[in-house]
Amino acid sequence: MHAATKIVIITERSILDDVADLLEAHGATGYTYTSAGGKGSRGKRRIDRVPQVAGILENVKIEAIVPDHDVAERITEAVVEAYFDNYSGITYVEPVEILRPAKFRV
Amino acid sequence: MHAATKIVIITERSILDDVADLLEAHGATGYTYTSAGGKGSRGKRRIDRVPQVAGILENVKIEAIVPDHDVAERITEAVVEAYFDNYSGITYVEPVEILRPAKFRV
Amino acid sequence: MHAATKIVIITERSILDDVADLLEAHGATGYTYTSAGGKGSRGKRRIDRVPQVAGILENVKIEAIVPDHDVAERITEAVVEAYFDNYSGITYVEPVEILRPAKFRV
Repeated sequence: MHAATKIVIITERSILDDVADLLEAHGATGYTYTSAGGKGSRGKRRIDRVPQVAGILENVKIEAIVPDHDVAERITEAVVEAYFDNYSGITYVEPVEILRPAKFRV
Repeated sequence: MHAATKIVIITERSILDDVADLLEAHGATGYTYTSAGGKGSRGKRRIDRVPQVAGILENVKIEAIVPDHDVAERITEAVVEAYFDNYSGITYVEPVEILRPAKFRV
Repeated sequence: MHAATKIVIITERSILDDVADLLEAHGATGYTYTSAGGKGSRGKRRIDRVPQVAGILENVKIEAIVPDHDVAERITEAVVEAYFDNYSGITYVEPVEILRPAKFRV
């Protein structure tokens, strides 16, 4: 298998489309998101534990895989710069292994 | 802690049970899934960003942990071969550490 | 980027708040959770594949990032000791990289 990097961004649902556009602008060929809840400890950008109505959670966990670690790092920096002054969120990367790197390249 | 491997499969909800059976047939002792949305860029097997109705997403992210990396790799190859000609999806593996390997062996 | 450790706990929804309190008591500055389904193979603590009603799943996948691997390991041990005799669940850790370790320290 081939080493690659997964970018994870957990933030407010309202900016899902913007983050998706940012990912694609940096060369990610796709992304996955799941609905998420949780709590952070970052002053006014706190993610509050939200009441659940029919399973709807107010945050999203967005994931994308890119073949190059440098690209992943640049995306995390771009997300922090573009959104995390005004929206709650965290971002990090994880090592993964993939079968076909070509699927993840533009 | 003990090194192990997590297999991740993101695909269409309609084949969740089939993928679960494939995981068990390869020796996985359990699996977890979450509802997911997203977008891929693979021609006609594109995962379209779906409209959300009451938090229901049309894809699933399926995860299973196996103690042996070779088993994980074989499972990803089997998933690609069995499903990804006809269903959209991606699969990858991640390194994890577990406390009790016996829980994850048949 | 800076090495850190993600703790993952997949367990019954009914103890989400208790696990969140345990995480915070051990110094985690936040956590994220998603609704999850799945199946385990651990005798009477089996996680059964649940029928889905409007996307509601009966388990939760809880994730938290801590800068120190030792803290992550202690949290997994504490979770196993406190809950997994009486509730179904698994826990494991994953290596991640973060931009700003200070965000993840108390």
